[in-house]
Formats: sequence, structure tokens, C-alpha cells
Amino acid sequence: MALRTSFSHFLAPDNRSTRQQVLTAALHPLFIPRYAVSLPRNQELTNQRLQLISTLGLVSPLDLQTNPTNLFTAVETLALVDLSLATKASIQFNLFGGTLVRLGTERHQEVIRKVANLQAVGGFALTEVGHGNNALGLETTATWESGEFVINSPNVSSHKFWVSNTFLGAQWVIVLAKLIVGGRNEGIHAFLVRIRHDNGSILPGVDIESMGMKLGDNGNDLAKLAFSQMRVPREALLNRYSDISPEGVFSSTLAKTSDRFFSAIQQLVFSRICMAGIFMSASKLATLIAIRFSAKRLSTGPTGKSDTPILTYQLQQNALFPLIAKMVCLDITLNYVKGECVKGSKDAPDLGSVLKAMITWHSERLLGISRERMGGQGYLACNRVGPMLGTAHSGITGEGDNVVLMQKVASNLMRKKDEEMPQLKYCPKRQLPEMANVATLELLLELIKAKEVMVVGELKAAVRRRQQANMSFYDIWMKEESDRVQLAARAYGERVCAEQALAALSQRPDLAVFLTPTVTLFLLDLVKNDLAWFLLRGVLSPAAARGVEEEWTQAVKRFGSIAQDLVEAFDIPEELIFAPAAKDLKEFYSKKNYGEHLPLAKL
Amino acid sequence: MALRTSFSHFLAPDNRSTRQQVLTAALHPLFIPRYAVSLPRNQELTNQRLQLISTLGLVSPLDLQTNPTNLFTAVETLALVDLSLATKASIQFNLFGGTLVRLGTERHQEVIRKVANLQAVGGFALTEVGHGNNALGLETTATWESGEFVINSPNVSSHKFWVSNTFLGAQWVIVLAKLIVGGRNEGIHAFLVRIRHDNGSILPGVDIESMGMKLGDNGNDLAKLAFSQMRVPREALLNRYSDISPEGVFSSTLAKTSDRFFSAIQQLVFSRICMAGIFMSASKLATLIAIRFSAKRLSTGPTGKSDTPILTYQLQQNALFPLIAKMVCLDITLNYVKGECVKGSKDAPDLGSVLKAMITWHSERLLGISRERMGGQGYLACNRVGPMLGTAHSGITGEGDNVVLMQKVASNLMRKKDEEMPQLKYCPKRQLPEMANVATLELLLELIKAKEVMVVGELKAAVRRRQQANMSFYDIWMKEESDRVQLAARAYGERVCAEQALAALSQRPDLAVFLTPTVTLFLLDLVKNDLAWFLLRGVLSPAAARGVEEEWTQAVKRFGSIAQDLVEAFDIPEELIFAPAAKDLKEFYSKKNYGEHLPLAKL
Repeated sequence: MALRTSFSHFLAPDNRSTRQQVLTAALHPLFIPRYAVSLPRNQELTNQRLQLISTLGLVSPLDLQTNPTNLFTAVETLALVDLSLATKASIQFNLFGGTLVRLGTERHQEVIRKVANLQAVGGFALTEVGHGNNALGLETTATWESGEFVINSPNVSSHKFWVSNTFLGAQWVIVLAKLIVGGRNEGIHAFLVRIRHDNGSILPGVDIESMGMKLGDNGNDLAKLAFSQMRVPREALLNRYSDISPEGVFSSTLAKTSDRFFSAIQQLVFSRICMAGIFMSASKLATLIAIRFSAKRLSTGPTGKSDTPILTYQLQQNALFPLIAKMVCLDITLNYVKGECVKGSKDAPDLGSVLKAMITWHSERLLGISRERMGGQGYLACNRVGPMLGTAHSGITGEGDNVVLMQKVASNLMRKKDEEMPQLKYCPKRQLPEMANVATLELLLELIKAKEVMVVGELKAAVRRRQQANMSFYDIWMKEESDRVQLAARAYGERVCAEQALAALSQRPDLAVFLTPTVTLFLLDLVKNDLAWFLLRGVLSPAAARGVEEEWTQAVKRFGSIAQDLVEAFDIPEELIFAPAAKDLKEFYSKKNYGEHLPLAKL
Repeated sequence: MALRTSFSHFLAPDNRSTRQQVLTAALHPLFIPRYAVSLPRNQELTNQRLQLISTLGLVSPLDLQTNPTNLFTAVETLALVDLSLATKASIQFNLFGGTLVRLGTERHQEVIRKVANLQAVGGFALTEVGHGNNALGLETTATWESGEFVINSPNVSSHKFWVSNTFLGAQWVIVLAKLIVGGRNEGIHAFLVRIRHDNGSILPGVDIESMGMKLGDNGNDLAKLAFSQMRVPREALLNRYSDISPEGVFSSTLAKTSDRFFSAIQQLVFSRICMAGIFMSASKLATLIAIRFSAKRLSTGPTGKSDTPILTYQLQQNALFPLIAKMVCLDITLNYVKGECVKGSKDAPDLGSVLKAMITWHSERLLGISRERMGGQGYLACNRVGPMLGTAHSGITGEGDNVVLMQKVASNLMRKKDEEMPQLKYCPKRQLPEMANVATLELLLELIKAKEVMVVGELKAAVRRRQQANMSFYDIWMKEESDRVQLAARAYGERVCAEQALAALSQRPDLAVFLTPTVTLFLLDLVKNDLAWFLLRGVLSPAAARGVEEEWTQAVKRFGSIAQDLVEAFDIPEELIFAPAAKDLKEFYSKKNYGEHLPLAKL
């Protein structure tokens, strides 16, 4: 138990008091999950929950100046309770409030002070319906005219989509729009635009519509916005880098319009970390539920009777354990990346992108396989895995489509010098020793590093070769080498995770009981999943590859000795689990409840 | 266009008039999709839709005696309109009605005659909450007592779960229960039990509760049932094989209790085909929507402008095209398996199981990747892919968890004699010729056959070796060789699909424009996905394996020339697509609609 507590603190080391207070607040009946609720009721309920949380004063955009990781902590802890609530908090405190803190000046302080207690609720209006993955093509304009900006959506394709927090009551929205001064396009800037009066009535010039029903995240009141020649004051411009004088003279400390755009969306780096944290929490909760269920669920045993927990089946173990080991190692890496992010390390944007991509993809798989291996119980909303799976999909393409983020990461990898890449001891100069040795963690890391070095090398060579054949870089990147581009970014992310996992193992010998089986299975799984790649390049001999397969099989079995303890170390209070499949199915089904925890009248 | 029509008819050759009539009926406004509806409203609406369809007189359980494939056709066509509607139809006409036809006698004809027009609505109560995957452990009893059966649920774990069609109005349920006569357990039998009067009131002795909200399929009014000493007449027993005289003398033409059980659930073979057809239709609709969207959606082009359809990106093609090629080949195979099923071929149960498993798993992936590659548009309910994805999960573990079906298939493979297995020309005696030749379809099929033969051989050898080391078969099967067990069943299913795909290619040279790129990509994809397996066994040399990768890349590109035409050949009327992403996004978003096709008041 002491070990479990140490492991809990190791995975969630920072802002323990924020975590504790959020989880304690969530014991309020308002947070009891409800499933068969209508879309408007769901959104209203999530709003009420955010309201209650905000009264605790636990999180504020001003944390950016004093304790930035507190934003991550608050959001990821809320995600253990309600994914939509966490998303709304992330938008309110980080993307809306944080952008104000980063880009605003004195004149925006009054609004900033109102963000934490929700007197000023806001959204972030970036994506336009016609420009999903190409934000530089945005068409919304902010035209300087007689001392004001005129915000306008020239056509349907410029309508702002996916604006969180905004359908029900936001008073403010940060609008990303092309600034036009004297007929000249000064690039995309961020404007703080009031869309509702404090009494809730909508200002003229803006049209707000619900995005409607989605696969998940239906507690979040996402809106679509259209502006028609809406006049906003000069002070609406978030003027940290660019400004306009009352006389209409534009100035900016950033010469390039692309830099102005990237400064306007800089808080997305933090957003991606928030999102990674949200789906990491969803994965932890699902893992706890799936493992508890598997340990209690009895099915066919040696004599044909229903007397054997399905967790003892190799099939269940092979399906779930590698996903759990990977989740823990991703979590360890996420903690490292948060630190890099807060330090403002130059690698932070790429690390944030690759982690957000890896964690959201992984979460979708982990939730999907957990759902599947729980059978019908996983399919019922009351067991939470299913609804979280629907929401997890939003992580894959929200805040930057994963594949687009990976392209960006890969293009930065291409620019690295050899000395900035991992240094190899064995590979690729000579083939690794045979099977017996492959299972050492040092050699597994060597393989994972070699993959990154070699894939990036192959990608560079392929680009060079095709350019020499007069192919454009665009065509090479988008039409010929896209698998290698994605693989390069993934290899980079996996190497970082493997290094962090091994660092944890060496720094925390006291946690070896948990970390050794976890890290070993994770590294073996990474290599096993790319076995053909290693074999084709002669990095692994067939005998060594078979060794990896055999070691993987044994590593899964060994993980079984810690699996049940490990999932109890995720700091999730018993009262917040709710899923009957993780508690007492017979008790749940002995009452008439329509699959809900609350009477129908209260839904 | 003529070619497209031929291809349509080739994929959907039978019962063209049923297809046409279902699709025409679905033009009624009742079938307009609604998304943000409450659970009860959703279930009521789906019931109304089934009612309307039943008035057409297109499908009846009696089709089993005259034209059994009509059941499959009706269900899979309904799935193009509404997945829950199709599921409900499948249960009503096939599993409920079909079981009555197969197991009932003269005394059940009156009910049978009422099934087609829904005067008798019914469910099939098999699964118990405590016995998900071990139906032989069922605890519900039917005890013979003073000339009647007493149906009883002794405890919570014996409550019947997942009983389709039953929460809202079914008058009847077929209950699977252990028959006890004079204290003796005669095995599990099927009983036709009345649970509601015609006026809708529930009979005493049965408790009916909603299963509550689920990840998908929320239009289906699934119920949980508990029986407390409910008395039903002697005629409730479906007495085709077993019967009891008024004096209480039990007799059966089936000596073994396991045979009595399997006869009682025999209609599940047809159910699995229905389910495969449902998710095949979902995949077709999703494919059409994803490809149309990708062809219209513009993003970054060579000059940075949003002027290039994302369907031209290799990333989009590599993600979607192999899934589509596999879907078409699975569909071709499904048509073959329907025929085997109707003929009552001895392979039909295994073929049905493996196809249901492969199609439902594939559908979940195809819908998930289509959702992902459509970005936010894929996430909106109005574009249909997301909601269908939620429902697709039910296919993986419903009507038999896929992994359990695969175990059964593998155990039957183990019993096959060498001469019943595929005969090989090259493998595994000698390595296949190098790369240049691998891309011939004949050699690809040879590899796929070799995999089946070798995996089954390896599994037999592993079982033998471990049994010699005194391990029990149960431990070998459940704790040591489960990956090989699953792989063996998959290898069998893939070989059948590959053979059927090639047979189609040779029988229909007129469709070569569609079939050649499709079948080629499918076979390459099967081999590419198991490249490490082939390399490790020396069946493919590294050079040949690289050849497979290169050919795959080219095959994806070639598929691009037919992709847009192909997806238009799925017989889905324009008026039934609905998804704005596949039609005109600007038109959809130029109106205030809350993401719905109907005004809020009508939802």
C-alpha cells in the first residue's frame, strides 16, 4: 500500500492539493454521471459543474505567471470526473484566459480577472468550416474603419466552427481574423470580441448556433459563429506584439505575418498538453474499470463451469496489458514534457505535438479494446468506457489533426544535424547480438533509437533522390513519402518515451516492482510492433526477432503480477468510479434503475 | 455508368425487388435521421419505422422455407437507412420468427403468422448477466410442474440481458432455460413465453427493464428480463426435437443435452450473417461519405492555398483505400457465405462465424479511420459516420464475442485432415520466387494459403508438444497459445476471402476495371500486414518482402483511379445519404439547423 502511494505520487507529482480539492469537490451530487440526458440538459449540467468548480478558486489563467503546471493538473483531474467538463475548463482557463494573459496588455486585465470565477466566459474562434487543416487560409476579416475594427465573415466557408463554451453563455470570444488596415493585409491577429451582454442577450452582428450532436463530448456547448460587419473597439486587438494607434497607424514587433499568426495561436501548445492530460485520465479510468471487471468476471474454466476470471485468459492479458504498460510510459513522458513546456524549451512545441498525437491515438485504442474486452458491459454507458471512447475521437483531430502535427514534427527532424540525433552504440553499424541479449533494456532502447536515426536518414535520402529527379518537395512530402513522414515523427516520439521510461526506472529503484515489468513490456512492444521493419533492414536477425516475440509473451505474463495493483494507483477515489462493472454488478442490477445512478426524474 | 450498374448488381445480386422497395419506402419523412433525440424518443421512432416497413410485406420468417436470402437482403438494406432499425428487423424476423419456424410445430403457427406484420413482436432471451460468454452455464430454469412450466430466474446473475425489441412492446419472448422434469435437468431448451397482453400490459411474473443508454444502437429497445415463478403452458416448449406429454413424459430426438442447446440457438448462424450484412452496409455508407468528402474538401496545395482535394494526399489514400478494397472483398465473400448458409453446407457455421468476426472488426476500423480522416466533420452526428461507429462496436461482441467465435473456428481447423486443407504449389517446401513475381495474384494467394496451412500446423505442433509436457488442453488453449489460436482462425477466413475475390475476378472479366485494382490491393494488404510472420519463417525473402511493400504503395495509387466511381456503385439512393459532408456543406450551414435535418420541434 505504501508502494502504491509512492507510485501514485510519482505519476502525479505536482499540485497535489489541486488534485485533492478537485476530487473532493466532485463528491457533490451534481457530479453523479447521467447518461440518457438530452443534448441541452447535458450542456447545462456541464456548465453547472464548471460553475461549482470555479467557486473553489483552484485554477486561473494567471497561474501561467506563477505555477503554469497547475492548469494541466486541474484539467487532467477534472477529466477523471467528466471529459466535457475538463475540455471546457481547458478552453476557459488556458486557451481563452491563457491567450489573454500572453497576448493582452493592461487594457485586458479587467476581463482577465473575471476568467477564473466565470464572470467572463470565453471561447477561442480559430477554425473555419472551409479551412479545417489550413488555418493560414482563414477568411474572417477585421478591417480598420473609423477608429474601430469591423469583424466580418464574408461567406459560409469563413464561419467559425468548434467554438467551445460559446453556445450557452460565453460573453467573450477570441476571434482569429485577418487584420486589414488601409486595404493592406497585416496577417492574422487575435481580437477579444464581446458576443453577449452580461444579461445573456446576444450582441448584434454575431450569429451563434449550436454545432449539434456529436460522437462524444456532448456536454461541451460548442458553437458555430458568423459575424456580419460587427464593429468592435480598438482595444479588442490583443496588442502584445502588434497594435494600432487611434489614428490608424499599425505597428508590430513581428515583421513576418506568419510570426504574427503563430504568436496568436501560441497557447495551443499548452492546449495540446491539456488534451493529452484529459485522454491520459480517460485511459487510466478505463484501465481501472476494465481490469477490475476482468478480475471479477467469471467464464469457462477447466471443467466447463463459469468459475475462472477472464483476466487469467492469455487473450485478455495480451489485449490489455501492453496497452496499459504503454499508457504508463506515455504518462511518465507527459510529466517530462509538461516541464519542458513550462521552461519554454525549444523542443516543447514538437514534444507537445507528438505526445498529444501519441496519447490521443493510444487512448482511442485503449478505450476501444477495453470496451471490446468488457463485452456488453463495456457497451453500456453506465460503465463509462463507451462514452469516453466517443469523446476520445475528438482528441485525434482536435487542436490540430494528429497527422498534420506529425508532419510538422517530421519536417523539424529533417533539419536536425547528426549530432542532435540520438547517438548509437551498436546499430546500424552492426547487427545486434542474438536473442538472448535483445531483452536487455539497453539493447531495446538502442533498437528504438536506431529506428529514429535510420527512418530520418531514409526520409532525407528519399527526398534528395526525388528532388534530383525534379520532383517538388510538396509532391514528395504529400504524394510519395507520407508513410515515412509519419513513421519518422512516431519514431522520434517513441524514442523520447523509451528514454523517459528508462530514466524513471533508474531514478526510482524504489518503484522497480511496478516500473520494471511496465517499462520492459513497453519497450518490447515497441520493437515487436515494427518487427518487419527491423528484419527488412537486417537490424534484427530472424533469431533475435523470434526472441523479441518470446520475451514479449513472457513480459505480458509477468505484467499480470502487478496489473491489479497498478491500476489502483491512479488516484481515483472509489466514490468517483461509478461503473457497476468495476464494483458490484449484482447490486446494481438488483434495483430498477434504467442503467442510471439517479432516478429518471432527475436526469 | 453501365459498368457501375453491373458492379452494383454483382455486389447485390439477389432479391433486387426487396432492395428497391425498402429504399423507396425509406424516402418517407419518418426515416429522416434525427440525432439529438432522447433515448425513449429514439426507441419509439425506430419502432414506428419498423412498423411502416412491416406494412410492405417484404419480409417474413416464412421466407426461410421459400427464399431464405430475402431475410439477409431486407436486413442489410434497412441498415443503409438506420442501423438500429436493421437490428430490430433482424431479431424480429430472423432470430425470433426464424427460431419459431425452425423449432416450432403446428401449435406455434398462429404466432408465426403474426410475426411479419408485427402483430406478434418478440425478442430472444439467451444471455444472462452472469454468463456472457458461457451460455452453457445459464441458470434460468423451466421446471415442469402440474402440467405447466414454471420459468424462474433464481438470482440476479440469471437475469436475461440484451433482449432486443422487448422494452417497448414485445408480446413474446423466446426464453432459453434449463428444462427440469421430475428433478432431472434435460438441458437448455427454447420456450415461447408471453410477456405482454395485446393491450400492452405486462403479465405477472416477469419484470422488464430498459438496458439504458449505450455507446450506440440506441434506437433498439433492449431490455433486461427477470422471471419469478412464471407459469407458462405446456405448448410454450418449441417442440420440434424435444417434447413433453400432458402427463409429463419427456422425450427428445436429441440424446445429448449439448445438441439440444445447439439446436435451440441454431438461428444464431443466420443472425451472424444478418449482423455481417448490417455492418457491411454501414461500411459502404461510410465509405461513400468519406470519399465524397475527401474529393471535395480542399486543403493546402503546392502554393500554400486551400486548393487541393485531400483525396489527392497519399496519407488519405493509404488510410482509406486498403480498407475499402478489403471491404469489397469481404462483401464478395459474404455473398458466397450466404449461399453456403442457405444450402446448409457443413462449413456454414464456421464461415458465418469467421465472416461475422472479420466484417465487424473491419467495420469498426473502417468507420473509425473514416471518422478520423474526415476530421471534425466526421465527428458531427449529422455526417452519420460517428454514430454508426458507436453502433459498430456492438457487432464485435454481440451474437457471440468475435474472439470466442474465432476460438471455435480454430478448434474445428485443428480437426481437419491434411487433404481438407488448402493444397500448396510452392510453399512451404521452397521459398517463393523473388519480388518481381510476388505481385502476381496467384503467388499472393499461395502465400495466404501457406499462412493458413503453416499456422494450423504450428498450432497442432504446439499443442502436441505441450501436452507431452503434461499441460492440459485447457491451459494450452487459454493460457499459452491464444494468439496462435486467433491467428489460425483469421488465416482461414482470409484465405476464404482471397479465394472468393480471385474467383470473382476470373468469373467477371467484364468488371475487371473495378475488380483488378480492388483484389490486387486486398491481397497485397493481407500479405503486407503479416510481413514479419512471412519473413521470420523464410517464406518471403527480405527482397520479396520489400517488393510487397513497393507493390502495395503502387496498388494504393492505382486504386485511386476507381475509388470515386466504386463508392457510387453501392446502390445508395442520393436522397438517403443525408450527410452534408457528402453533399453541400455550404448549403447545410447557410441555414440555422442545430446540426439537424428537421426543425427542433420535430425531433
